[in-house]
Amino acid sequence: MLVVMKPHATQAEIDAVVERIRSMGLQAHAIPGAQRVAIGITGNKGGLDPGNFETMPGVADAIRVSQPFKLVSREVKEEDTIIDIGGVKLGGPEIVVMAGPCSVESRTQVLEAAHAVKAAGAKILRGGAFKPRTSPYEFQGLAEEGLKLLALAREETGLKVVTEVMDVENLAMVADYADILQIGARNMQNFSLLRRLGEVKKPILLKRGPSATIKEWLMAAEYVVAGGNYQVALCERGIRTFETMTRNTLDLNAVPVLKALTHLPVVVDPSHGIGLRRHVAAMARAGIAAGADAIIVEVHPQPDKALSDGHQSLTPAEFEALMKQARVIAGAVGRQL
Amino acid sequence: MLVVMKPHATQAEIDAVVERIRSMGLQAHAIPGAQRVAIGITGNKGGLDPGNFETMPGVADAIRVSQPFKLVSREVKEEDTIIDIGGVKLGGPEIVVMAGPCSVESRTQVLEAAHAVKAAGAKILRGGAFKPRTSPYEFQGLAEEGLKLLALAREETGLKVVTEVMDVENLAMVADYADILQIGARNMQNFSLLRRLGEVKKPILLKRGPSATIKEWLMAAEYVVAGGNYQVALCERGIRTFETMTRNTLDLNAVPVLKALTHLPVVVDPSHGIGLRRHVAAMARAGIAAGADAIIVEVHPQPDKALSDGHQSLTPAEFEALMKQARVIAGAVGRQL
Amino acid sequence: MLVVMKPHATQAEIDAVVERIRSMGLQAHAIPGAQRVAIGITGNKGGLDPGNFETMPGVADAIRVSQPFKLVSREVKEEDTIIDIGGVKLGGPEIVVMAGPCSVESRTQVLEAAHAVKAAGAKILRGGAFKPRTSPYEFQGLAEEGLKLLALAREETGLKVVTEVMDVENLAMVADYADILQIGARNMQNFSLLRRLGEVKKPILLKRGPSATIKEWLMAAEYVVAGGNYQVALCERGIRTFETMTRNTLDLNAVPVLKALTHLPVVVDPSHGIGLRRHVAAMARAGIAAGADAIIVEVHPQPDKALSDGHQSLTPAEFEALMKQARVIAGAVGRQL
Amino acid sequence: MLVVMKPHATQAEIDAVVERIRSMGLQAHAIPGAQRVAIGITGNKGGLDPGNFETMPGVADAIRVSQPFKLVSREVKEEDTIIDIGGVKLGGPEIVVMAGPCSVESRTQVLEAAHAVKAAGAKILRGGAFKPRTSPYEFQGLAEEGLKLLALAREETGLKVVTEVMDVENLAMVADYADILQIGARNMQNFSLLRRLGEVKKPILLKRGPSATIKEWLMAAEYVVAGGNYQVALCERGIRTFETMTRNTLDLNAVPVLKALTHLPVVVDPSHGIGLRRHVAAMARAGIAAGADAIIVEVHPQPDKALSDGHQSLTPAEFEALMKQARVIAGAVGRQL
Repeated sequence: MLVVMKPHATQAEIDAVVERIRSMGLQAHAIPGAQRVAIGITGNKGGLDPGNFETMPGVADAIRVSQPFKLVSREVKEEDTIIDIGGVKLGGPEIVVMAGPCSVESRTQVLEAAHAVKAAGAKILRGGAFKPRTSPYEFQGLAEEGLKLLALAREETGLKVVTEVMDVENLAMVADYADILQIGARNMQNFSLLRRLGEVKKPILLKRGPSATIKEWLMAAEYVVAGGNYQVALCERGIRTFETMTRNTLDLNAVPVLKALTHLPVVVDPSHGIGLRRHVAAMARAGIAAGADAIIVEVHPQPDKALSDGHQSLTPAEFEALMKQARVIAGAVGRQL
Repeated sequence: MLVVMKPHATQAEIDAVVERIRSMGLQAHAIPGAQRVAIGITGNKGGLDPGNFETMPGVADAIRVSQPFKLVSREVKEEDTIIDIGGVKLGGPEIVVMAGPCSVESRTQVLEAAHAVKAAGAKILRGGAFKPRTSPYEFQGLAEEGLKLLALAREETGLKVVTEVMDVENLAMVADYADILQIGARNMQNFSLLRRLGEVKKPILLKRGPSATIKEWLMAAEYVVAGGNYQVALCERGIRTFETMTRNTLDLNAVPVLKALTHLPVVVDPSHGIGLRRHVAAMARAGIAAGADAIIVEVHPQPDKALSDGHQSLTPAEFEALMKQARVIAGAVGRQL
Repeated sequence: MLVVMKPHATQAEIDAVVERIRSMGLQAHAIPGAQRVAIGITGNKGGLDPGNFETMPGVADAIRVSQPFKLVSREVKEEDTIIDIGGVKLGGPEIVVMAGPCSVESRTQVLEAAHAVKAAGAKILRGGAFKPRTSPYEFQGLAEEGLKLLALAREETGLKVVTEVMDVENLAMVADYADILQIGARNMQNFSLLRRLGEVKKPILLKRGPSATIKEWLMAAEYVVAGGNYQVALCERGIRTFETMTRNTLDLNAVPVLKALTHLPVVVDPSHGIGLRRHVAAMARAGIAAGADAIIVEVHPQPDKALSDGHQSLTPAEFEALMKQARVIAGAVGRQL
Repeated sequence: MLVVMKPHATQAEIDAVVERIRSMGLQAHAIPGAQRVAIGITGNKGGLDPGNFETMPGVADAIRVSQPFKLVSREVKEEDTIIDIGGVKLGGPEIVVMAGPCSVESRTQVLEAAHAVKAAGAKILRGGAFKPRTSPYEFQGLAEEGLKLLALAREETGLKVVTEVMDVENLAMVADYADILQIGARNMQNFSLLRRLGEVKKPILLKRGPSATIKEWLMAAEYVVAGGNYQVALCERGIRTFETMTRNTLDLNAVPVLKALTHLPVVVDPSHGIGLRRHVAAMARAGIAAGADAIIVEVHPQPDKALSDGHQSLTPAEFEALMKQARVIAGAVGRQL
């Protein structure tokens, strides 16, 4: 249930509603809103009676929420969530581009990549310092050394940094260096980690699990938001199907469906999604045309020498060409880039 | 194997190559090409020796084909196939829009829909007279009565007509009325039907089976082309995945992959693909951005009263709005509409 | 809706019910039953009022059917359908084994296979004369010549014959030779063919489509039964998933689910299901343990020389070993073999 | 690469091989074996030359390992791994049954369940104290209180205990109480957790991820084994497909495939696999017939009042009936139970 306060409700009126919710043994969640305060209620089994709240002073309405996800749903918060990352606004009218190498490999590589994607118009640098790998015998990332190189690249270019955190153990360290914390597809339902992300004061980029339904994905975001962190963006990166010609099947259907169901920003990762360099630009364009708020693209100065995912990384020149097309498509859907 | 003739090879030289192929117990297929003739060879087990042909007069080259699909592959025919449907060119620089109701229901309905989609810029009218239905108890289409109404709509509007043929039995009748023969997703591997389509002198719109791999789909097209009919377009209409929020999962990854592998035109059906009216426009835009040569969209004068697929049909007004966006996206990828 | 007649209802009473159904513009289907007659009603949109029938003479009950499949459902016919194939009873207490080569290749091959599987205890010989092949360039079967060899093997061994029919065109010919008509997975939703099978007086073995849901599969069977042919068996042969180590994913979950939902016999095809010779026996055993009424297994005198599916065909010796295990498992679930 | 020592190789000879491996910058893993010692080599990029080791004293053979999984593969260790859990031997001739409630809910519930499953022949008690739940608002388990109740049930019945550990944070605590640590499906590729399990001295029950390929699953086990813990059992619990009538699709194909590829024991979970109480017994029987080393079944004294998964839990009486059938099937495949 959602209790919507009147535009000029007083703090005392709000507090009284919160108090009544808690006295019923339930949780109250204040929902950020430009015009007025709303208070989400969770923890109830079965429906609540709106009459409990409707007649309280300052209350405009008490609404039943039909979806299993509550705080992330548009039913509860109609206006788009805009995540402000030091001035870069994710979820607003401008389409944000995140780009950079799959893994941070060396000082030269990351700086070269950062300068190149900055020049082409990216606002956020991506790069993995901790790499989840199917095999224990593959390159697992540079760890803190990689984080330091990302921080250096940020300093040199002014780009913000998004990088993956794989576990609670390294959460504080990664949060020290990163501007956005990426949660990988295989960790989408790592509930212990999700709960801790609710307490973090950094934006989260939550990748979709390879076989997660849209509902499960929203429920995973709900874990973070219910923990107190409203700065969550959802990143479609391809689902697992029977098709073997592509690495994954980038599910662009999820983009308009999510934009209707949730107020959180939606990001598209065409690089992991299709997994073939020559087709990344087509899927990036399609993602923007479908309504994504951002794209995240792998770019490597020398893809053929990359320690991971070279076959799906663009060269700086290919990335620059993509950016030009992306700008036109953004205009076609009423956005800027 | 593919035998490529020199630009000015004589008919006698071509005939000699065909003769040698047949004398080896194999099939020869002349491949249409703007510049020069090529002759595909099929029926061999294991590799052939290029030396059999390379030294013959008029032969430029003899090339091994690495894919299991031969005549539909870009290895064998590099330039795009353009299907000319009475002046409407599918596969060329212009993006073609096909639109109309799921089923032909009545004279009023089909004429109203035809005039509306024509006014908004569609070139081809879609509409089913024979409807494959999961249940034997559902509306199965108006049959020949429906075909007559489509022909009437063509006469009134000048639109070309695409409609489904479900079996060999009705093939001749449908071919009499239609400009393009649609093969439904569930018939994609109806090999008996595919073989007969090879003998038909009408373009074919071959929908992807709901769980067909791209390779299987190209092999299905190969059946038609190997039978002698090169006018085949491939229509992505959504695959089956675990996701239940959408009717199917429109697989736009298939668009750039197909454009690289085959010379045949690629069509996107966002209506069946996502199956939700409010999201059809987003997927249509994304399809064009991904590189489709055409889109096929369900439009119904009164979607809420449709006998089938009303929940995924656009109103004429929604279709008109989509066309405006589609034109801008087409421009962004260097096409017209 | 289902109208259940009293045990000793007269023909006149039955006729009166049928008459009333037809007078309402609906279809009446007499349902075979050991104890009493029941009459299924189809063609209605929305629910019917049981009061229309409950008070008629001879009527015991009028029951709403909740599933979209009607005549194939256990709601409508509680007792198991037993298909009598010249004395071999499919769906009864005895588990039936069908075995033989993928394709009929030669007189020697089919006779050798037939004698071997007969000796080991099979009751029905399988073998394809028309082969649906992904590629137009692969071996497509011996056609009528193959059917004649199957008939010869039947004459020599007394085995019954199951073989595939691919289209309406060859339906009469195949029905002339075969004891059971197999409908391949890719034709499961070939509705034109299904409708014709309703008029045939031969049992049907309906294979599950590679991505068909259980509900769609039952609806496909409903097409045949609604057409008048109640002799339909359902054959699970593996579904398409993301797993690539096996040819398909044999879905044994379907076995108990089907046995609860429908009165039709359920057959398991471990050969196509897992597609790996060394694992066929394990899946055959599991199929029987899960409750299948029959298994259908590929056996070839010389699998390594088979023209199709050799990698998943058992040798006669392997088949004999499987039969011994199968007998014990059958006993464990209260069946004979 | 695998270096196989002669049966009577001395410790000094073994040490010399290990030394040479390390001097090449690679890792050496001693593989437990009844007859003789083998040493697995990992960390190499590209192939190694067997000549490096073949001529060393005490070396019988140096074998290239073709699979990406090394230490878990049968190429490297041919004989079955038998995990000894205080006398209960998992992977040996006897089929082990694990049973109990989904979640530990109360003292009465867990003790009642434990006595019931013990009486019917189970050897290991299952029960969740930490529950991974899709929604943050659902019952999340009793945590340490639940572990204490499991320990109490062990004391009272002599059953061993398997329970889930969700994160590194609680690993030491769960390991203190449990005899086997279960890793849930959604944590199958939680690589940070897997690496820590390599250092634990407790057996691991590694559930398959809902869309994990068999290869990925074996690679996840490889993480644990490469870390030093060879006591890993693999638990099939259903994969995600398009079918919606069952909770998951229990993939029994995985059982014979795994038994051929790896020496680790294979467990089947029919309860989560099919997710419907009335069909659990059929799938449990099929699992044993397919070659599983153990089954794990949900049993609840009052399934209708369970806090989680009641719809798929057997009553004690249903479990007892299943055990009787299971014994006969076990005998049919040459096992005891």
